[in-house]
Order: sequence, then C-alpha cells, then structure tokens
Amino acid sequence: MSVAKILDEILHPKSVAVVGASGSQRSWGYSYTTHLLEYGFRGNIYPVNPRYPEILGLKAYPSLLDIPGTVDYVISCVPSNLVLGMLEECGQKQVKGVHLYTARFSETGRKDAADLEQEVLNKARRLGIRLIGPNCMGVYHPGHGMSFGYNLPTESGPVGMLSQTGGGASGFVRLAGKRGVRFSKVISYGNALDFSESDYLEYFMHDPETRVIAVYVEGVRDGLGFFNTLRKAAGEKPVIVIKGGRGEAGTRAVASHTASLAGSMKAWQAMVVQAGAIPAKNFEEMTDLAVSFCFLPPVLGPGVGIAGGGGGPSVLSADECEEVGLEVVPLPPEIRKTLRDNGVQIWDWVSNPVDVSIIGGFGFSDLDMLRLMGSNEKYHILIGLINEGVMLTLSRPEGAEMRLKGAVEGYRQLKEEVGKPLLAVIGDDGSGIDEYGNFSGKIVSQARTDLIAAGIPFYPTIGRAARAVRKVLDYYLKKARQPETGL
Amino acid sequence: MSVAKILDEILHPKSVAVVGASGSQRSWGYSYTTHLLEYGFRGNIYPVNPRYPEILGLKAYPSLLDIPGTVDYVISCVPSNLVLGMLEECGQKQVKGVHLYTARFSETGRKDAADLEQEVLNKARRLGIRLIGPNCMGVYHPGHGMSFGYNLPTESGPVGMLSQTGGGASGFVRLAGKRGVRFSKVISYGNALDFSESDYLEYFMHDPETRVIAVYVEGVRDGLGFFNTLRKAAGEKPVIVIKGGRGEAGTRAVASHTASLAGSMKAWQAMVVQAGAIPAKNFEEMTDLAVSFCFLPPVLGPGVGIAGGGGGPSVLSADECEEVGLEVVPLPPEIRKTLRDNGVQIWDWVSNPVDVSIIGGFGFSDLDMLRLMGSNEKYHILIGLINEGVMLTLSRPEGAEMRLKGAVEGYRQLKEEVGKPLLAVIGDDGSGIDEYGNFSGKIVSQARTDLIAAGIPFYPTIGRAARAVRKVLDYYLKKARQPETGL
Repeated sequence: MSVAKILDEILHPKSVAVVGASGSQRSWGYSYTTHLLEYGFRGNIYPVNPRYPEILGLKAYPSLLDIPGTVDYVISCVPSNLVLGMLEECGQKQVKGVHLYTARFSETGRKDAADLEQEVLNKARRLGIRLIGPNCMGVYHPGHGMSFGYNLPTESGPVGMLSQTGGGASGFVRLAGKRGVRFSKVISYGNALDFSESDYLEYFMHDPETRVIAVYVEGVRDGLGFFNTLRKAAGEKPVIVIKGGRGEAGTRAVASHTASLAGSMKAWQAMVVQAGAIPAKNFEEMTDLAVSFCFLPPVLGPGVGIAGGGGGPSVLSADECEEVGLEVVPLPPEIRKTLRDNGVQIWDWVSNPVDVSIIGGFGFSDLDMLRLMGSNEKYHILIGLINEGVMLTLSRPEGAEMRLKGAVEGYRQLKEEVGKPLLAVIGDDGSGIDEYGNFSGKIVSQARTDLIAAGIPFYPTIGRAARAVRKVLDYYLKKARQPETGL
Repeated sequence: MSVAKILDEILHPKSVAVVGASGSQRSWGYSYTTHLLEYGFRGNIYPVNPRYPEILGLKAYPSLLDIPGTVDYVISCVPSNLVLGMLEECGQKQVKGVHLYTARFSETGRKDAADLEQEVLNKARRLGIRLIGPNCMGVYHPGHGMSFGYNLPTESGPVGMLSQTGGGASGFVRLAGKRGVRFSKVISYGNALDFSESDYLEYFMHDPETRVIAVYVEGVRDGLGFFNTLRKAAGEKPVIVIKGGRGEAGTRAVASHTASLAGSMKAWQAMVVQAGAIPAKNFEEMTDLAVSFCFLPPVLGPGVGIAGGGGGPSVLSADECEEVGLEVVPLPPEIRKTLRDNGVQIWDWVSNPVDVSIIGGFGFSDLDMLRLMGSNEKYHILIGLINEGVMLTLSRPEGAEMRLKGAVEGYRQLKEEVGKPLLAVIGDDGSGIDEYGNFSGKIVSQARTDLIAAGIPFYPTIGRAARAVRKVLDYYLKKARQPETGL
C-alpha cells in the first residue's frame, strides 16, 4: 500500500483513544478529548486514564486493553518513559496509527532520550504501528472532527499543511482562518521519526481535498528525496514553503526544537524555487499566499490597476507595486477617450493609481475606474484600497460605515463583472479596548466578513498584497511555460 | 522674525474663521468647524457662509468682514476661483495665516490653474498673509484644539509631522495613535506654495514640544536647502522620512497629486541617510519607528534576547532578527550556571530564543529567562513574543485571558526592573465580525491597551519589531560617534 493510502487511512479513524486523557483543564489529554467532542468526531472516543472513571462525560478506561471495541488511532499524552509500554498495548489492540504528542526525545539533545526515541521507532515497526511525531501537535482535520486547537474553523477547505512546528501551525490556521482560508488537513509532525516530511507531502499531493499545500520545515533527513517529492507536488498544486532556521541563531534554535539539521540556506532557497515551489519568509507571508491561491483566479500578467487611496497612499501604492515587479500601467488613450466621451472633466488629469481625493464630484467613482481598467487587456490585476483608516478620520461615523459598505458591495459586483484577479487592501490596525468598544472596530470587522463572503481576498497592506500577487503570477507563468511536466 | 517663530504664532491662533463653513455634514467646512468644537478650541470660532445664520450652534457670518473681532487664522474651504477675493478680505482683517484646504491649483497639471496659484501667492505676499497649502488638510494640533480629522487622539504627545499627503497623515495619526503614539502638531502642506517643507522642518526642529519628527515628502523645490535643514534637524532629534514617488509610476502619481518633482530615488535615499535621518518605506514602518523612538530608552547594541514563542515561532524570530543585523546572543556560560544552580533541569537545552513549549514545568518561565538575559551585559535588547494567536488556540478562553494578562503584567515589571529596551510582539490579526463578538478580539484589545499604559511598545510581527529596533540602534550608534555635531 502506498504511503499516501496508509496516511489517508490513519487520518480517517473510526475510533480514537486519548491515552493520558484527564479531567484537568490544563492537561493536553483534556484538550485533545475536548477537541474530538467540540469538532464533532463521529466515531468512538475513548479516554484512557486509570485515575478517572469518566472524563468530559465519556467513560474512561484504565488502559487501552480495557477498551471493548477496536481502536484505530491513539493520541499519546503520556510522558516519554511510558511510551514503550503503551505501544505494546497498541500492538495488542491492532492500532494503526499513533500520534505522539509526547515530547522530550531527541530534541533535548540528550543521548538517553535519543536512544529511547530509536527504541520507540523500532518497537512501532515491529508491531506494524505507524507514528506521527513525537514532539508534535498532530492532526487538525476538521472534516473528520479532529483538531489540535481551540477556536479553529470547524469547516473544511482546500489548504493542506505539513508543519514541523505545532504552535506555528495552529497560529497559522487561526491567522489564515481570519482571512477566509479553510483547511483539508494540517499535520504537525515534530521530530518526523516514522513518517517523513516527504511522506506527508506525497499524501497532500494525492489528496483530492487539497488544492494548495503549505509547508513549514526546519530540516529534512533525506534532502534529495524531499526535493524530488517537492518537485512532483509543485507540478500538481501550488506548494508554499517556509524554511525555519535560516541563519546561525535560527539553526541553533532548530537543534533544540526538533533536532533536525538545518543545512545551508542559500542551497535550500535555490532548490525550493527550482522545484517550482513558492518560498515564504514567515507565516504572515504564507497567509497572504494561501489567501491568494484560494481566492484568486489565475494571475496571467503583471499589469495592475489601483484605486481607492488618496494622494499619498496612491503614490506609495505605485511605489510598492513597482518595487516587487508589477507594472502600474498608465491609463491608455482608449480609457482617457471613454472618460472624455462621458464628460469626465478630469479625463486628462486622473491617473493610475486612481487618487480618490481628486475624482470626487465628477460623476465617476474609483469603482468605475477599476471597472474601466479591468475591461482593458493591459490590466491583469486590480487592487482596491479600502483605505478604512482615512475613511474613519475623514468621515463622520455614519459616513464611514456607509462608505465602507459601499466599497465592499462595489468590489463584489466588480469581481463578478470583470472576472480578473481583484485584491482588496484593508488594514489590520489592531485596536485597543476603547476602539474595540466603539463603532470603528466593528464596522471594519464587518467589512472583512463581507469580503470573505464575496470571495474577495484582502491584505493588511498594499505591500503585502503586491508581494503575494507577484509570487502567484510567477507560479502561473512558470506553469504556463511547462504545461506537461507542470514545471 | 524667524520662520519657526512665525509658524509658531500661526499654529497658536486665538480666533479661527472657517470660510465656506456649512451645515451640510458632507462638506469640509462642516468638518473643520466640528473639529474645532470637538477638539476643544478655546478661542473664537467664526463660521463664514452667507447662506446660513447659524452653523453647529455658532453664529455664522456672511463674510470675513462681518466678523466683529480679530481673526488670526482662516481655514479656506471655498472653491479655488473664490480664493483671491477671500484673501483680499483676510488682508483687511489682518489675518496672519490661511490654511488653503482649497485645491485644484497646479496639481491639476493645467496652466490656468497653475497661473491662479501663482496669483494667490503674489497677493498673499503683498498683503503679508502666510499660507499653508493649497491642496492640503492643514493642521492637527490637539493641544490647541485644532484637527483635520474625526476620531483622532485629543491628547498631545512628542511626535511632530510634516506631510505632503493629508489622507496619509490622518491615517498615520490614527495608526500610530492605536499604538500609543501622540502628536505635538501634524501639518499637511500639500503644494507648499508659501511655507516650504524646509520651513516646517525648521519649525519642528525648534519646537520644544516635539521630540521626534516624521516627514512624508514627495518632492522638494530646493533640494540643497532641504537636505541642509534635514541634516541640522537630524542632529537635534530623530527624523523619520518617507519618500513618496520612488519609481516610475509613483513619480507619475506624484505629478497629479502635488505637482512636485520627485527626483532620482537613489540620490534621495543616499542623502536622507547621509543627513542622519531614518528612511521608512511606508506608514507602517514609520509607525513602528515612531513607536520605538517614543517608548524605548536609547538602544546601545545589537545583542537581543527573545522569549515567549513556541518552537517554530522561536526559530523564525531568530531568523528575522539575524536577517536585519541583530545578534541573537547564545546563552552565555554564566546564565547556564545560574539555571543549573537553581535546579532548572533543562539548563543545557534551553536556548535563546527561549522556546516556551520546552520550559513549562521546570519552575522557570519565559519572563524569568528574559530577566536573566536582561541582567547580562551581552544583551542590549529584549523581545517578548506574546504569541496571542497560539495562546488562543492552545488554551481554553479563560486560560488564554489569564496567560495574556500575566504576560503583560510580567513585561511591565520586567521593564521597570531591567531598564533596557523591551519590545513586545502582539498580532494585529484583523478579525471578522464573529470574532469581534466573542472574547478573543476583546482580550487582545485589552492587552494592547495595557501595554501602552505600561509604556511598552508593541509590534504586529517579529520582523517589524526587528527592523524598527535595528534602525533605532543605527540612529544611536551614529549619534554616539559624532556627539558634538549631532551626526
């Protein structure tokens, strides 16, 4: 059976036991049991702990062997010194997969811990049990009722992720989730003792539920194998890759985190790009890229039309687009002619980016200008600057709310009419408790929700929008050049 | 009288007339009158409009000449064709300064408009009236009850700003305001017809209320004069400079925005740095720098200690600090010894950045680790990763709230004890309306407010914190090398 099929089976268990489940809210065994309940796992859930008769309303069992039915999947929250014994019981219960949340193995840098890790692997192999981890958060698979965190989306979506960091992965699901991204499965795999990063990548490459793959990796055991798989996967789907541990200090940090060899960064980056994958520097950039691949139609050229900002923000938006290699196309004669024919007095003065502070009162809005540019073949990308910070300072509250709603509704219609990639820029602007309590935080939050509902990706700054869409363009250009191999 | 003194007088009027004031909420005359009332201007306010007997509860006057008392300062919201006549009346009333919100002069690119602009200047000179603008938002001076926007802070603070963009300036006051920055005066000066950018810069250099200067400039009339003033100002105070119109498209946009010559970007950037000023790419970076200069004590070296993130976020934080030229100093033997002496089992495993996912349960927190590093001479900068996204997914709501409060309170104490620059990283994470309605947006907003109250600067990402503090370090290093000239 292929590794992809084995993983698929493990990721769809009919019954799950949480070994080291507990009634203490501060324990991980409590959390994993809660997640199965809260995310709606539909099979049997068996908490295992000799000290509790019942956990979270479920009957608890003193050991795995006391469970009456079959157990497909085990989440291990016990300390590392208990893992060998637990595996023995898993063998007897014919458990297929074990997620070792359990940590303090080779990542401690200590020989005894590394030796124990090796013993764990040997025993699992002997018993025919496959391992996710150790030292990891495991699986978030909302479609199957499995999660590794609170407050994450319960709906599924097209992004699959393999990650050597668990905290980073859960933070990313949250961050991208707030931008409308949903996930097929996310696997935090820690020390990659049994399944390797290449195995997970192979899985997502074949997984029909996954349309975009995100990878956070600090180091790999088999570099050649990984890059071969990466090349294959990138031929099928966009693969976004963060490499953690790029410098000296990061490499040291990797050693104490997952004990993997970080390798030379330059070689890494070159190989990621050669493989046809998309490098990201951090989770913010990965979020921007995931949002872009999820929501945008293919990006087919660098010509960009921008509207919505006042003077200064317009000027800077042009700068930031050019600086990443997009072309801020001047308004062509045919558009000026249309403006003139429609009696727009400033037909010769208005430009791209469209400065909203000069077009007011001429019967032509920034949306009209985006529509005109979007209908012209020179423009491949449209960017709408929502400019909420300026709206909120230059309009009275009711005015700002009306303008904000109008902008989002306008973009929604524009997107349907024009069909070209349309990106919105709306600030994050983390607010304090006063603003949280007043209208402005609320109307901006509503606008974000409405944008997601309209299928329009948004970005907190023009710079981040521009960098993301440029990388998406590079992906489609590369794909177009080598359609057969996918590279 | 020096230009700084003249400007200071104009910026402290005892009476203000709003010409073109109006009862229509959508008009700028309405807004400027509202601002004077809402920000608490203590002198006389005279709305001028022949069509209203009363505006916003204030007696309105048909013309400037009908006003009984003296008028120091005029805000002009009338169309450009009425400006010459209005100036004539200003002359008769011995008005000192006029802010021309009025636009559609040379920035339109049309000869008749440019000629009119020149006539306006000539008439003002003849009448002894000084002009701010035209084509600008004018003055935000909260300490004197003057503003150009709604919902901006009413308290004063140490940052002064001159800006060729009004929308950008108001957006910046809002953005930086949410991070705890307050302003002395902000002057949006548009086409700089009378007072030049150098005049404003000279003013802020001498203004005792201003400790940090922010500049947004697209182009200058007299390059040599500007850079000489910039050099002098930067010798006195940190000067942060955004240059708008860096590329081809941006330069075109500048032309239609404020009609200034953008000049060659490379020469510009070099001269900004040579002058001892601090270049910023956009308003987000300017915000980070303003926050840093307002809240941090002098930054005296590149050694950084980081704590608070889990494995992956720790690794990436090290990468991002190194990539901007900070030194992520490995834990020195004396710190390891202290840990060992205190019975911390992982004394040899824990490292900098401090990975919180491995230190739990050893009786030593990430705050303890920051305190140890802060007390060691190798560390000049401390960065605390609040990691709220991970907290909110890995803890139950009550747990997340408790941890968040604990982190902020811990930082507050640490800052007082250690006295070294301490930066916090807390995500912006713009949320949708669901999260707005639940606990998580609220507790993060509260944490931001508490950080500001504690005088601790915060940044939405580690990358932005690192870039800002590196530039602040460069400023202090340069200052230390040339203490006499300030350069």
